[in-house]
Amino acid sequence: MRFAKASVMTGPRTMEVREFPLPELGVDDGLLKVEAAGVCGSDVKSFLGDLSPRILGHENVGTVEAIGRSARQRWGLREGDRVVLEEYLPCGHCDFCRSSEFRLCLDSDPSTNPAALRYGRTPLTVAPSLWGGFSDHLYLHPRTVAHRLPGDVSAVEASLALPISNGYEWVYREGRVRPGDVVVIFGPGQQGLGATIAAKAAGAGLVIVAGLARDKERLDVARAFGADHTLFADEEGVLAKIEELTHGELADIVVDTAAGDESTISLALDAVRKRGKVIVAAASMKPLRELDFFKINRRYLSVLGVRGHSYQAVEWAIGLIASGRHPLHLMCSLTVGIDQADQAILGTAGELPTPVIHASVVPA
Amino acid sequence: MRFAKASVMTGPRTMEVREFPLPELGVDDGLLKVEAAGVCGSDVKSFLGDLSPRILGHENVGTVEAIGRSARQRWGLREGDRVVLEEYLPCGHCDFCRSSEFRLCLDSDPSTNPAALRYGRTPLTVAPSLWGGFSDHLYLHPRTVAHRLPGDVSAVEASLALPISNGYEWVYREGRVRPGDVVVIFGPGQQGLGATIAAKAAGAGLVIVAGLARDKERLDVARAFGADHTLFADEEGVLAKIEELTHGELADIVVDTAAGDESTISLALDAVRKRGKVIVAAASMKPLRELDFFKINRRYLSVLGVRGHSYQAVEWAIGLIASGRHPLHLMCSLTVGIDQADQAILGTAGELPTPVIHASVVPA
Amino acid sequence: MRFAKASVMTGPRTMEVREFPLPELGVDDGLLKVEAAGVCGSDVKSFLGDLSPRILGHENVGTVEAIGRSARQRWGLREGDRVVLEEYLPCGHCDFCRSSEFRLCLDSDPSTNPAALRYGRTPLTVAPSLWGGFSDHLYLHPRTVAHRLPGDVSAVEASLALPISNGYEWVYREGRVRPGDVVVIFGPGQQGLGATIAAKAAGAGLVIVAGLARDKERLDVARAFGADHTLFADEEGVLAKIEELTHGELADIVVDTAAGDESTISLALDAVRKRGKVIVAAASMKPLRELDFFKINRRYLSVLGVRGHSYQAVEWAIGLIASGRHPLHLMCSLTVGIDQADQAILGTAGELPTPVIHASVVPA
Amino acid sequence: MRFAKASVMTGPRTMEVREFPLPELGVDDGLLKVEAAGVCGSDVKSFLGDLSPRILGHENVGTVEAIGRSARQRWGLREGDRVVLEEYLPCGHCDFCRSSEFRLCLDSDPSTNPAALRYGRTPLTVAPSLWGGFSDHLYLHPRTVAHRLPGDVSAVEASLALPISNGYEWVYREGRVRPGDVVVIFGPGQQGLGATIAAKAAGAGLVIVAGLARDKERLDVARAFGADHTLFADEEGVLAKIEELTHGELADIVVDTAAGDESTISLALDAVRKRGKVIVAAASMKPLRELDFFKINRRYLSVLGVRGHSYQAVEWAIGLIASGRHPLHLMCSLTVGIDQADQAILGTAGELPTPVIHASVVPA
Repeated sequence: MRFAKASVMTGPRTMEVREFPLPELGVDDGLLKVEAAGVCGSDVKSFLGDLSPRILGHENVGTVEAIGRSARQRWGLREGDRVVLEEYLPCGHCDFCRSSEFRLCLDSDPSTNPAALRYGRTPLTVAPSLWGGFSDHLYLHPRTVAHRLPGDVSAVEASLALPISNGYEWVYREGRVRPGDVVVIFGPGQQGLGATIAAKAAGAGLVIVAGLARDKERLDVARAFGADHTLFADEEGVLAKIEELTHGELADIVVDTAAGDESTISLALDAVRKRGKVIVAAASMKPLRELDFFKINRRYLSVLGVRGHSYQAVEWAIGLIASGRHPLHLMCSLTVGIDQADQAILGTAGELPTPVIHASVVPA
Repeated sequence: MRFAKASVMTGPRTMEVREFPLPELGVDDGLLKVEAAGVCGSDVKSFLGDLSPRILGHENVGTVEAIGRSARQRWGLREGDRVVLEEYLPCGHCDFCRSSEFRLCLDSDPSTNPAALRYGRTPLTVAPSLWGGFSDHLYLHPRTVAHRLPGDVSAVEASLALPISNGYEWVYREGRVRPGDVVVIFGPGQQGLGATIAAKAAGAGLVIVAGLARDKERLDVARAFGADHTLFADEEGVLAKIEELTHGELADIVVDTAAGDESTISLALDAVRKRGKVIVAAASMKPLRELDFFKINRRYLSVLGVRGHSYQAVEWAIGLIASGRHPLHLMCSLTVGIDQADQAILGTAGELPTPVIHASVVPA
Repeated sequence: MRFAKASVMTGPRTMEVREFPLPELGVDDGLLKVEAAGVCGSDVKSFLGDLSPRILGHENVGTVEAIGRSARQRWGLREGDRVVLEEYLPCGHCDFCRSSEFRLCLDSDPSTNPAALRYGRTPLTVAPSLWGGFSDHLYLHPRTVAHRLPGDVSAVEASLALPISNGYEWVYREGRVRPGDVVVIFGPGQQGLGATIAAKAAGAGLVIVAGLARDKERLDVARAFGADHTLFADEEGVLAKIEELTHGELADIVVDTAAGDESTISLALDAVRKRGKVIVAAASMKPLRELDFFKINRRYLSVLGVRGHSYQAVEWAIGLIASGRHPLHLMCSLTVGIDQADQAILGTAGELPTPVIHASVVPA
Repeated sequence: MRFAKASVMTGPRTMEVREFPLPELGVDDGLLKVEAAGVCGSDVKSFLGDLSPRILGHENVGTVEAIGRSARQRWGLREGDRVVLEEYLPCGHCDFCRSSEFRLCLDSDPSTNPAALRYGRTPLTVAPSLWGGFSDHLYLHPRTVAHRLPGDVSAVEASLALPISNGYEWVYREGRVRPGDVVVIFGPGQQGLGATIAAKAAGAGLVIVAGLARDKERLDVARAFGADHTLFADEEGVLAKIEELTHGELADIVVDTAAGDESTISLALDAVRKRGKVIVAAASMKPLRELDFFKINRRYLSVLGVRGHSYQAVEWAIGLIASGRHPLHLMCSLTVGIDQADQAILGTAGELPTPVIHASVVPA
């Protein structure tokens, strides 16, 4: 019997490497040999939380090692194909799934279905346990959504496909950025940098990225990806600065990828021009006690809640990564083995001495 | 010298009839013989406020009495033509004006330009004083936006063009209602009824209108305009009722035309389905202290601030009124002369014994 | 062993009833007990053509009789559920399939893949032969796309779901008809009548349906579905008539569902207003020798080629059928048993004494 | 009395310099001191035609020399302001004008109104004769649509605003090019080069420009503007080349800016992928006898007729020119004085020894 080696989160801030027997497969599932699994900001939240044991890792890149007869047909894949996986395991038949918006599938959304399956979130107790990418093998459930990856693309760079696709989804597909637009992005993390890449790729005329003092390195990377200006949002006068940079015209689109407390949202509503769009790409649990909600009406704003990405967005991101035209290596700050997956998360959390933008776990 | 007779708001809750010399006209302006001027909810706010003297009335219908040579060209009108006027007097050359969104023109918006001209709002001190429709004559400023009105349409029904166009703008042009959609409308006033008419005309499958206990008559009219269900929003369990009526699917679009306090907005965010739209068509000054703003992100909502109407929406509304297919007379509750314009406003405010939905001032 | 009874097209204009053993099923397929199968215009073409033996019938309605474990998950169905089937058997993983446009899937389109599977078209030689609805049982292939059908809807009316969904797809989703629009429809067959229903449901202000002299009954039905005017396209002066009915403004949208010879297309390009849309929903093989193609440029036209329907369109059609608000029985001209399936096709071809709009084959 | 000096086209291929008294102005018109007037392909057609005497030149850039009181308000301009003019003189009140599509205004379109006014087309016999830009002064008619031009932009480069705006209108606003799209452009003239610039600015992933053998220099400029590949359309195997360059996927959008004979249109219908868009931006008078029109239906194509530009497109083009980021000087092949305006047109016609892409007439 063959075994997978995986890093299991066993409790808050605790991981240990374990072995799992590789599952027996049927006609409609498969097995992925993991090449790299990226670390997302949400992994930090999970790792600090009190969850039952599970294998984290949902930005997964790998090679199809085994695949059932029926899955081969449905996915158009066979053994040896390289793929980027979506984290979603959508039902495939609800209105959202049939409308090319499977990320909204109620059945596969943990917030509406506690038993929802999702890569990097499903506990060990659900067979065959291999639901996360911090492992050398990942189970390919019948609901898997896979994207082909060209043979010559670095797996570590390919593990950026989801954050970059988020940026594309939010700025282009939802925000409908137009050539020449002014885009202000709050938060220079992976999502904000993905938004920066997407905004420039869609022809945005002026991209301003705002971060905190501690984000200095990230803001440098934002500029390397084409941001025209970067700002420290925790300094005084950030709105005045945006006004100045835009000659008083403010932003066509503001994207909030930051933790989203009251001051950020309030600033977003002020930094966007009349009839502009505020993209709310992050949620905070802090109540907003002073927010003037009706600015939305008085300034004719559109406030768009967004999360995740469409299939098309991931395809676009893979195309961009494969083109080799962007200095994506600047985002790939840390690569560790399975036995150090905790370090990858702590780095993403900012708890390591060196700043980390995007970390990946790469099986030996 | 000829004179106009107009009802002047001279202070809070105070009106008096005065005469004004008809203005001398140039090449690029004109004079309207008013046939009817509708009363809008915002007139109530004005009438209770502490404004400098002015003639109210911005839902104006009339006949071109005089028109300059240049205005004739630019407006495509001549003496004797019947028209419905927009309340806006847009600059005509800013980006908004050139993009067919002149209602957003910063120069003609009182909230961004205190000296902005607008029908029904501009004080007497701005020559030639005749800026409001509660008068037998109205000055046609060079910036006037006029719509032709067929000869056989009742002026009182035509004074509904703006509230009906608002409904069309908000539900169809902004909300993009689709055939079969579920639409929930808060507030059965003129705007909410306009939204009801527009939603049904665009093929909405289920329209639910919610009002207060005191809105009973208005809710009856909503049903006459095609609303499938009406609810009392101040009773317990209104969300449960909406869930029941929609078989748990909730609304595709919620339109808030009510005063918009916290409970209404909060209900709107809950009554709309995942990825649905909340149209914020009214603003309150009350701060929202308990609102869970990030539901917008968690439920993938679009919250769209809207105000007023486009040219196309008014054209559509006039077409609908002229078709004679809707029982619009049900909305036309009160018609008074110029000397009773205050009664029309008080009726709209709900201060008269008989309920009023839409009142009009009609010169003798 | 149980058997299915089906009407097999064995050659041009020839059918015979045969029995087929019911297939053994796996985890990812199923079996439909057919309740009704509608006849489409394309069935006429097939029936007159020289095809290898096959069971026709692709407008299929029935009850799930058996379904594999995996199919149950993927389709969200179980034994006893009523369904309307799409004719397409899409691959599920190409860009079109992932973009909610599976009708365009190259792999399942007979014009790009001669081995493509499709209900009502696949020959007997492809196991398990039961690919058409003129049968008491239909094989549910793993690629099946099914829509739930409420229990109380007539199967015969439900067999109209595809033509009605076509109308919705073409007029609303592709043509983007707006409330108040003028729509001219060429061809009052099932597709044209579906377009009529959809246009009115989406709020079209004026719908004109044009047919031939022999289409008199169909034009009567068009009016029953809300068409404001009907015309005989083979009489002189049809363009002048359209000009008159539209007060010289012509059509916002022209939909050509007719056989599409030169005169129809040429008329379409003339009957649409500047910047209007011509929806080409039918193709002819006759070359167009006199067509002034560049009218498309000179009159700023959009000419949109369309075929078939999206998932959403079928859902909408089923909702409309289930609402019971339309006199759909007027379209259901002929219902026959499996042994008379040839009559249903000949009726659709206009070869029976009584005019037929939509025929259905209903197993005993 | 002051005089304007202008180059008058007096007959086919004939120009002479004449003087005209500067007009007396009213409140709603003005006078432009011309800085540069670009030459468009349509000027060639005019110059070869048998038109009554007129001043050509409709790509006009200049400084407001005089402006009436009312015009100052309506245009937001005053003496000394630099502007780029639209060629259209739209009525301002029709549905097209009110919908931000004034280029479609029936009243100002010479094809629907023989008396339509338009810069660069209106004959001398219409007072005050100064309707064309090949002159040191141009009359600013009350219907003028002007765009502000920053002070430091070269007038000759600014005279490219209209062809570049056409590209943006056709590829982005009509064609809705998306980041990563494959765009094939037929014709590397000013319009095709404008389309190239716009496609790249909107993020097109692969732009292929096809021209004739004589277009070698223009194709070089296309590459300098970012075209990924150029082709000779008059060589064998151009479709095979496009297939190869796109790995068999063909184009998302084909733009035909060439003269548009049968082979070009036929190639366009073949070079675009299923469900792709063909933008017909040029019209030929040659009948198309062999074209298989119904490919539009069979391949689900959208064929969009386009002409000219919107206000927004010109604003975008001016922004792009003012940014100084593109080597626009490569397009500015020839600058001549008023007395050599005929040379500018002949150069554009390809009748001068040196190849000309875009020529401008600049008053001394």
